[in-house]
Amino acid sequence: MRYALLLSYDGTHFCGWQVQKNARTVQGELEGAAEKLFGCKTKVAGSGRTDAGVHALGQVCHLDAQTPVPPERLREAFNALLPPDVRVLKSAAAPEGFDCTRGAKKKTYVYTAYSAPCELPLFDRYAVRLKEKPDLGKMRSAAKLIEGEHDFKAFCAAGSSAKTSVRTVYSVSVSEREEGGAAFYGLAVCGNGFLYNMVRILAGEIFEIGCGRRRETEILRAFETGRRETLAKTMPAKGLKLLSVDYGVPLFCGTEE
Amino acid sequence: MRYALLLSYDGTHFCGWQVQKNARTVQGELEGAAEKLFGCKTKVAGSGRTDAGVHALGQVCHLDAQTPVPPERLREAFNALLPPDVRVLKSAAAPEGFDCTRGAKKKTYVYTAYSAPCELPLFDRYAVRLKEKPDLGKMRSAAKLIEGEHDFKAFCAAGSSAKTSVRTVYSVSVSEREEGGAAFYGLAVCGNGFLYNMVRILAGEIFEIGCGRRRETEILRAFETGRRETLAKTMPAKGLKLLSVDYGVPLFCGTEE
Repeated sequence: MRYALLLSYDGTHFCGWQVQKNARTVQGELEGAAEKLFGCKTKVAGSGRTDAGVHALGQVCHLDAQTPVPPERLREAFNALLPPDVRVLKSAAAPEGFDCTRGAKKKTYVYTAYSAPCELPLFDRYAVRLKEKPDLGKMRSAAKLIEGEHDFKAFCAAGSSAKTSVRTVYSVSVSEREEGGAAFYGLAVCGNGFLYNMVRILAGEIFEIGCGRRRETEILRAFETGRRETLAKTMPAKGLKLLSVDYGVPLFCGTEE
Repeated sequence: MRYALLLSYDGTHFCGWQVQKNARTVQGELEGAAEKLFGCKTKVAGSGRTDAGVHALGQVCHLDAQTPVPPERLREAFNALLPPDVRVLKSAAAPEGFDCTRGAKKKTYVYTAYSAPCELPLFDRYAVRLKEKPDLGKMRSAAKLIEGEHDFKAFCAAGSSAKTSVRTVYSVSVSEREEGGAAFYGLAVCGNGFLYNMVRILAGEIFEIGCGRRRETEILRAFETGRRETLAKTMPAKGLKLLSVDYGVPLFCGTEE
């Protein structure tokens, strides 16, 4: 029997999603909890890896188990065994043939930055400070260039094992809000898949363009040349959150409390 | 020469504002930094104390010092010496006769709660989870009863040394926003002063009324009887933030970056 879990985690104290020896990972914590719960080693597959320090509001994973616990109660069973920085928000029996890794149709990430005269203690855990106020018009114009199907080779850190670097970005939307006396900028990026560090690289480029330190033409050049060094530096992990993974079918309907 | 500082801190790892022996406090960190900066013991006065675990977005403090550092640069000098969970947002020469404790005319606190099926790792540091979705209409109606000049004796934890328990609450406003798939409820309370635990007690009562577990008549009874036990329990510290302190004069104008 296959189960799907909707997860949220604070990436601050995790060395990313994927199990590693001698490092605390989200997958490691979940597999540890699953082993206690089901009494045997249980593999937990994720929709994709998140890097060290990256957060999640809506990561999806699946696991196969034999258990008398009703699917929608697995949530509580896991939460009783997991540390507080990772929580199961919803649990359900997976649809026939469901694979959370291969079945993911769309993913949405949000990158959050703020402008303030210094790091703000209440926000700095989940967002990155910009030294200038970015121009939203410039950011939106740059964001438009990213949308569509492109070869994102230049937007990929070294060490990627992806077969192709062509991806489709459905939308890049820029939002602004005021909180606690600071201006916050959100960059929501929705696509059919992302290369290694791709969202953090494109966020870096768009924020730099917004702050007037770089230009749109660099994005066009990056698409043409495929050269990583054409673009701005990768933004820090802490500003990135995996917001949701879309499978084209509702996975957790009817399990809302 | 007197200086005013605008502060933000994450209260999670502080035993409150006020200096204590063998405990980490915001005032203690500031006085430690001031001693290093000015080469002599320097008292730092706050607009008021905040409890252990309570956060601040706009606390105000003052200190007297002889220093060649220009007033608006004190910000950076302090930030270079302070730990990252407390930051000086702005610094300025204080107006003639300024006293940050006695001169405070209005303070605004915000209490934040959210409703979700479990604790949300990315939000649980600065907000408190409600098990139900509160009714905003009921909360707003209860909030109206708090506004005005009242004897808030029942809204005060034991151990207060205040001479009078009469305070004026100028406004209690209830807001709702959606973030990361959860509903967040903010209770902004502005008044001429607050008793010990007063905001956390009134937030507890208003959220309980919103969740249908208590009634407005209890607020009226609390004003009549002055009995603490008439009201709901005190909400946890982590949901509370000191948003701003108003002195009737701008303290930091012209220091914006």
